[in-house]
Amino acid sequence: DTSLKVFTLNSNPKLAEDIAEHIGTMLGKCTVSRFSDGEIQINIEESVRGCDVYVVQSTCSPVNQHIMELLIMIDALKRASAKSINIVMPYYGYARQDRKARSREPIAAKLVANLLETSGADRVITLDLHAPQIQGFFDIPIDHLQGVPILSDYFEAKSLEDIIIMSPDHGGVTRARKMADRLKAPIGIIDKRRPRPNVAEVMNIVGNIEGKTAILIDDIIDTAGTITLAANALVENGAKAVYACCTHPVLSGPAIERINDSKIKELVITNSIPLPEDKQLNKITQLSVAPLIGEAIIRVHELQSVSILFD
Amino acid sequence: DTSLKVFTLNSNPKLAEDIAEHIGTMLGKCTVSRFSDGEIQINIEESVRGCDVYVVQSTCSPVNQHIMELLIMIDALKRASAKSINIVMPYYGYARQDRKARSREPIAAKLVANLLETSGADRVITLDLHAPQIQGFFDIPIDHLQGVPILSDYFEAKSLEDIIIMSPDHGGVTRARKMADRLKAPIGIIDKRRPRPNVAEVMNIVGNIEGKTAILIDDIIDTAGTITLAANALVENGAKAVYACCTHPVLSGPAIERINDSKIKELVITNSIPLPEDKQLNKITQLSVAPLIGEAIIRVHELQSVSILFD
Ligand SMILES: Nc1ncnc2c1ncn2[C@@H]1O[C@H](COP(=O)(O)O)[C@@H](O)[C@H]1O
Ligand SMILES: Nc1ncnc2c1ncn2[C@@H]1O[C@H](COP(=O)(O)O)[C@@H](O)[C@H]1O
Repeated sequence: DTSLKVFTLNSNPKLAEDIAEHIGTMLGKCTVSRFSDGEIQINIEESVRGCDVYVVQSTCSPVNQHIMELLIMIDALKRASAKSINIVMPYYGYARQDRKARSREPIAAKLVANLLETSGADRVITLDLHAPQIQGFFDIPIDHLQGVPILSDYFEAKSLEDIIIMSPDHGGVTRARKMADRLKAPIGIIDKRRPRPNVAEVMNIVGNIEGKTAILIDDIIDTAGTITLAANALVENGAKAVYACCTHPVLSGPAIERINDSKIKELVITNSIPLPEDKQLNKITQLSVAPLIGEAIIRVHELQSVSILFD
Repeated sequence: DTSLKVFTLNSNPKLAEDIAEHIGTMLGKCTVSRFSDGEIQINIEESVRGCDVYVVQSTCSPVNQHIMELLIMIDALKRASAKSINIVMPYYGYARQDRKARSREPIAAKLVANLLETSGADRVITLDLHAPQIQGFFDIPIDHLQGVPILSDYFEAKSLEDIIIMSPDHGGVTRARKMADRLKAPIGIIDKRRPRPNVAEVMNIVGNIEGKTAILIDDIIDTAGTITLAANALVENGAKAVYACCTHPVLSGPAIERINDSKIKELVITNSIPLPEDKQLNKITQLSVAPLIGEAIIRVHELQSVSILFD
């Protein structure tokens, strides 16, 4: 039985600690700092020779720094003779650049996959990829965990009545359907057009929301333009109350202010990305993915299938 | 004859413009910006199909962002059917992480080489690598240009008398020797020990500096600890005047203040890295590598040898 070691980089050390605790181990000793000129300096302070190593890093903002920390760490682990290098990336940055929508666009999500493999990653454990097709960008095994059960369980425990699960756009209907199945509720769609990135516009509500409690679900909430306009449109069109939830709280720019100023009663998110510490977060409820990820690591390490965790 | 296009990213647009001007062309149209969450967004605004493309990017601070800009640009160019993707990287970031000095250290300079190749780079043109061995980290052709002739010519034109070329450490003696050959001067060495990174300590001067004008030469000046302590030690030990020069002005942290407060009369550097705009730079003379790099690009594009540019 090879020994298992969990290391954290700088993006989400609290989640990494919770994952290690769930597994019943301590985080490996490692310092990830910067030289005076901003170059990343990594010191792994214990042997990893022959170990199965799990590195926890969400590639959230500052995304480029977090990606480089991860690649340099993988390089160091490989040269230090780790037996396997397993990347635990709860949030996968650049996932929205997953196709050429226009001429001469990059596909940064595929680039990131290539960079991880080239550096020496043996396996990736991730959560709610923006598009499940990103799994196919890898030639190494990838375990794709899902946040819908965690979010659904939270709402189930609230015993809300007369609910409808709303997708804020066409792309998210499958996700809304999954939550609706778990909560035995109908679904609806906000039929919107987005004129340019980070700008959202609500158009038309598909589904009967009159007098209902609506739960908006998305994978990522970034500037929160889409979700807050959707929530306000739902209330204006007769919804009794509006909750919102997502797996990945990117929450950039005006997001928190928009949420606070919106008709959203409560926003439920996971800790795949840490919340900003200097903002008014009283509408936000954070659920932990540490048990989900911890179980996945235990199963991967025991060479069992993790597919049981998928729904 | 394939058409040649030069693009710049965000690290050194002025140098890129000067290079394009030297070649007799205009910079290709391209926008490199950020989404609200900090992810890089690249729009190449003209066709590159079948073109030999040269991308100018020094991977100076913010290094991780500049590396990711470059990798994403390469990805976009590759998918846009560029005939060849040539990276012009006057300053090569992470070059000082070029070996395992201690257990479990990464070799980030090799990682960067792998990342460039994986992304789709066909060739690299660079200048004064911290260690020339980094050339061997690449499996694609790499042209390694040298700054010593440019720096030497500047000092030659000054007609200084009784000069001695000083290496600020053991590692730089070969570089000092090259400059000394050009200026027909003797060399000396500062025999110093560095207790930890970014902290320098001057020990002992090897060579006869009494009444001489000393020219300190290094490849990189980062926090300027080494070079300013060396300069002060030279003056204290009888040097008449001290000049300093280097190819890459990293100049992080307290560098500019240290230079201004030191006994250095003039610091001569190149524009491989742009100078900070908000600092007192009156001791600093900047020489352009645009003609050197421009010539290299012309020769590479004409499929001639660039080795003639090496000294
Ligand atoms: N970090 C980002 N922030 C905002 N928009 C993005 C980001 N990355 C990609 N996009 C854009 O989002 C769109 C893809 O999102 P989607 O249609 O939801 O898959 C594309 O038009 C991308 O240009
Ligand atoms: N960005 C950096 N800033 C300061 N020191 C660094 C940097 N990168 C690497 N080093 C250290 O510099 C030393 C290598 O420099 P050198 O001996 O001049 O080749 C190693 O001990 C590295 O740990």
